[in-house]
Amino acid sequence: MKNILIIGAGRSATALIKYTLSQAEKHNWFVTVADADPEVAERKVNGHTHGRGTWLDVMKPNDRRDIIERNDVVVSLLPAHLHIKVAKDCIKYKKHLVTASYISRDMYRLGEQVKSAELIFMGEMGLDPGIDHMSAMQTINELREKGAELQAFRSYAGGLIAPECDNNPWHYKFTWNPRNVVLAGQGTAQYIESGHYKHIPYHRLFSEYETIDIPGMGEYEAYPNRSSLLYRTTYGLDKIPSLLRGTIRCKGFCEAWNALVQIGLTDDTYPIIGSKKLTYHQLVDGYLRRNDGNSTLKERVADMLKIEKNSEVMKKLEWLGIFDRSKIGLSKATPAQILQHLLEQKWKLEPKDKDMIIMQHEFDYKLNGKQESLVSTMVLKGNDSVDTAMSRLVGLPLGIFVKLIMLGKIKATGVNIPVMEEVYTPVLKELEDYGVVFKETKK
Amino acid sequence: MKNILIIGAGRSATALIKYTLSQAEKHNWFVTVADADPEVAERKVNGHTHGRGTWLDVMKPNDRRDIIERNDVVVSLLPAHLHIKVAKDCIKYKKHLVTASYISRDMYRLGEQVKSAELIFMGEMGLDPGIDHMSAMQTINELREKGAELQAFRSYAGGLIAPECDNNPWHYKFTWNPRNVVLAGQGTAQYIESGHYKHIPYHRLFSEYETIDIPGMGEYEAYPNRSSLLYRTTYGLDKIPSLLRGTIRCKGFCEAWNALVQIGLTDDTYPIIGSKKLTYHQLVDGYLRRNDGNSTLKERVADMLKIEKNSEVMKKLEWLGIFDRSKIGLSKATPAQILQHLLEQKWKLEPKDKDMIIMQHEFDYKLNGKQESLVSTMVLKGNDSVDTAMSRLVGLPLGIFVKLIMLGKIKATGVNIPVMEEVYTPVLKELEDYGVVFKETKK
Repeated sequence: MKNILIIGAGRSATALIKYTLSQAEKHNWFVTVADADPEVAERKVNGHTHGRGTWLDVMKPNDRRDIIERNDVVVSLLPAHLHIKVAKDCIKYKKHLVTASYISRDMYRLGEQVKSAELIFMGEMGLDPGIDHMSAMQTINELREKGAELQAFRSYAGGLIAPECDNNPWHYKFTWNPRNVVLAGQGTAQYIESGHYKHIPYHRLFSEYETIDIPGMGEYEAYPNRSSLLYRTTYGLDKIPSLLRGTIRCKGFCEAWNALVQIGLTDDTYPIIGSKKLTYHQLVDGYLRRNDGNSTLKERVADMLKIEKNSEVMKKLEWLGIFDRSKIGLSKATPAQILQHLLEQKWKLEPKDKDMIIMQHEFDYKLNGKQESLVSTMVLKGNDSVDTAMSRLVGLPLGIFVKLIMLGKIKATGVNIPVMEEVYTPVLKELEDYGVVFKETKK
Repeated sequence: MKNILIIGAGRSATALIKYTLSQAEKHNWFVTVADADPEVAERKVNGHTHGRGTWLDVMKPNDRRDIIERNDVVVSLLPAHLHIKVAKDCIKYKKHLVTASYISRDMYRLGEQVKSAELIFMGEMGLDPGIDHMSAMQTINELREKGAELQAFRSYAGGLIAPECDNNPWHYKFTWNPRNVVLAGQGTAQYIESGHYKHIPYHRLFSEYETIDIPGMGEYEAYPNRSSLLYRTTYGLDKIPSLLRGTIRCKGFCEAWNALVQIGLTDDTYPIIGSKKLTYHQLVDGYLRRNDGNSTLKERVADMLKIEKNSEVMKKLEWLGIFDRSKIGLSKATPAQILQHLLEQKWKLEPKDKDMIIMQHEFDYKLNGKQESLVSTMVLKGNDSVDTAMSRLVGLPLGIFVKLIMLGKIKATGVNIPVMEEVYTPVLKELEDYGVVFKETKK
């Protein structure tokens, strides 16, 4: 095997391309980076002797197949719904496939074909999903080998702004897909506590957050993800009494975000009529039913939320500009799209801003008749707004896994997520060289 | 024209069949009542000389077409999604069609074919939709003819229990489709107030109800329907500054229903795992995040709702049985299905119970430079749990309209709802003989 194909050269590809080129040089491989915008691809390869940037319109089957046929391992950083086209070509030409996306049902259905072609299609090989699977499985398996009986597993992750670059009242900036942040938690969060299923509807999710301690970092807030039960069977935790996956935010975030939910501004199900010419002030006014004629918009919002008009939440809302009389300027936009548009201006990473990823797993277990708790924490900061921790933590696991395939170190075949020892051990080991270290603390 | 076909002989057909048979006798017509259960059909026709009950499986195209071909006007009381099959046969055999259901897009698409066959397909010809359209249009057109400039139109309706039969703390019983009551308001309510669009998300809908006065009846609560804007153009109200359609409930209902919404019990989007063996107590517990270990379930619910544990709302919840330790007994049920199952036992009409329909339109307008308001109110009670006001108010408009077609009094063709003068004037006039009287009050 000599040739690696990376499809997609966007923001999340930077760390992956850099790592893969350096490995290519070492092992005498060749890396092709293909993108709809060939200049972006070429800029990221930057004249490297073991790589080239090229143009690819992934919707053109012949072009796609030509380039896949000439490589051995394919990494797809395309939008998730496009992976399946690449996957089918990979089966046809017998190429391995790696992505950082959630594995779709369609992809799982290819499992038998992938197996009989003796290929591996690895999905969820980034940060979350990705490093969360690997680090959790490593500790779970270690505990099991010791004979521990797991009673609770709580896993939290958050993409945040580093404290030294935190200069806004929300203590948050966008370090990843803003749309996912705006729509986060919609539906009903489900998890298990002491053997009972818990359901927290969206309209209470952000008011009933919990406070968690991140060793060395202090207190943060966490709210349960929409489904904590997704990987119960995959992790072998079908009988665990307590299981929760949650999202980490800085203190004060959840209560203020809840205000936006309560007003109705995260709703993505209908467009606001005439949104382009409305002001933010008018938009918010449209969510308030009662008007005694004597109160300001801010007073009415505070009143509806049953909070003080000078509270921290109201200050955060005001800072966002939702009471401003400036025009929204977006046509036929849903409330969520309008909110995203506003937040993208307010929560933008400045060039020198460093992001910060926190991931923490908490395990309660019984070992030799004793009740024990273990906390495993990883904190990583980026260098600036291009070389982000997020880009490294998504790109490096992909790159390392590609290397393992190229070196023939992966025996597994079929459609997988990285929960097997032959994958997580070498990947987590090498990630440590890049500062990705999980520190264990006993509670 | 001699023959009338009524498809469906269920609960909502009683008043329609009775009325149509009496008209058939008078005009020497013949009424065929067809149902999947021929005994029900025969029982309702009850040996009348001008009618017969018969079996029909509406999913069998040949049977359906045979029976439609032998009639002149068809009334379909089938579930709404089945009307379209009947409609296509009606075009083929050139038969008129009448239903009480909302007109679907597919039905509207038949408009041109129906027109060129010189037929009328009338939908929304029951109570709500039905009488609401007719009574509103009559007053709107009268006001317009006088030269009034309409500034606000608010229309409210509710199917309630008559005060003399009201013997539960919710002051509510099911007089119509329970599922619709449980899911009412889901989504975002939209209306217009003083020229501005208003959006009230579901999680605030029942806490921000308004209080309305029903002349002669006292105060009731009303919450805005999901879309008040649906008939804006049809009613010719495109430029009206305030437009709202709402649902009427007795005082105290909305705040208590809001408690069920806040807990999460009206959610119909996911099944509760193991619902059959759970108790109601366990179900509700699953919606509560925090447990200090010292509080009862009731105390924790009151705490989450931020209300007193001895409040009226808590008494209503307790009366429903949601804190009981009895088994739910329903498999794979959504929270909404479980709640419906419980409510069907608690809110059941007793044989002698009388239901009560309230419909009220409120108009604000300028006439001759003066600001005026007009309130038009209809209140009708049923006789018992079979001869309900609901069944009469759905069946009589259908029956009267069928008579008008049979007598050749309808000139309109195409797919319609009853907003034209040639329909609403004679229908509303005759409804008065049955006690359906709108009383006008000036505010």
